[in-house]
Amino acid sequence: MTDHKGFVLWFTGLSGSGKSTLSRMIEGELRKRGCKIEVLDGDEVRENLSKGLGFSKEDRDTNIRRIGYVAKLLARNGAIAITAAISPYAEVRNQCRAMNRNFVEVYAECSIEELTRRDVKGLYAKALSGEIKNFTGISDPYEAPENPEVTINSETQSEEESLVAIMSYLESSGYIPAVAANA
Amino acid sequence: MTDHKGFVLWFTGLSGSGKSTLSRMIEGELRKRGCKIEVLDGDEVRENLSKGLGFSKEDRDTNIRRIGYVAKLLARNGAIAITAAISPYAEVRNQCRAMNRNFVEVYAECSIEELTRRDVKGLYAKALSGEIKNFTGISDPYEAPENPEVTINSETQSEEESLVAIMSYLESSGYIPAVAANA
Repeated sequence: MTDHKGFVLWFTGLSGSGKSTLSRMIEGELRKRGCKIEVLDGDEVRENLSKGLGFSKEDRDTNIRRIGYVAKLLARNGAIAITAAISPYAEVRNQCRAMNRNFVEVYAECSIEELTRRDVKGLYAKALSGEIKNFTGISDPYEAPENPEVTINSETQSEEESLVAIMSYLESSGYIPAVAANA
Repeated sequence: MTDHKGFVLWFTGLSGSGKSTLSRMIEGELRKRGCKIEVLDGDEVRENLSKGLGFSKEDRDTNIRRIGYVAKLLARNGAIAITAAISPYAEVRNQCRAMNRNFVEVYAECSIEELTRRDVKGLYAKALSGEIKNFTGISDPYEAPENPEVTINSETQSEEESLVAIMSYLESSGYIPAVAANA
């Protein structure tokens, strides 16, 4: 078992910006290293902790606070909690940061133009047509973080480059042991 | 740090039967031994995970499932999760058991007559007068577990005796290392 710290790796970013994909890549990498890790995915958490909540600001904030609470419990018991919800509002993200001693915010940056162009799941088209209401970035606000520990950008970086950026931050900040390049 | 397993210690029993008190005693004892531990108290969980839920069977079950989910995440990452909610319904307790590989159910047994007589918080009087609705054991059902791993009884045992009974079970079942009597 690797000797790592308990910490929260908090992704924030618009739908389609790469939060879930990168979460799973990091999870795989950290599992290979023997870390204790949980990914608190937006959809899974809504199913298990927040069924019945909608997408108003109040309900979104409640959902995010619950994720922050569970992440805190995991991190203070030595596990790594990765959260991958959009978490659009800065205030509640900062509340979650304040609850957690070890908190690493990763901003998955991507322009709305690019996301609308890709639209892998067809959600942006539905949001633009009004079929989906309260869609972050289209009909609901997204507040980008001002001082995230790491910023990744799927327009200018490959997934592999983003993974390396995050892992490098975690190693250089002492959250996880550094691995020799030729290990 | 003691080398212990991750597991769930699940208390069930009527209000006033000693769940919270024993939870905190066990928490203290296990912390002294260097264990990673969280107590998921009924009230704290309602505040952090289940605000807005009431006391209908459906809402109670949802609350208990959420506790079971968080306990699962903690236990599978090597921590000890103690839950101290009334958890009156057998079916949902068994769902939580099924979610967790290492699950120890502790039945805090105490007759309704004795609890009504003690009534430390005055809740039973209010339940009997109808001031509090849906009160487990008075106006709402309580389904005692059929095969709990440990049963304690505050009518026939001191708190210290109950603590010893639970700790002995955890040691003899290999959940935590045994401590020499004269350690």
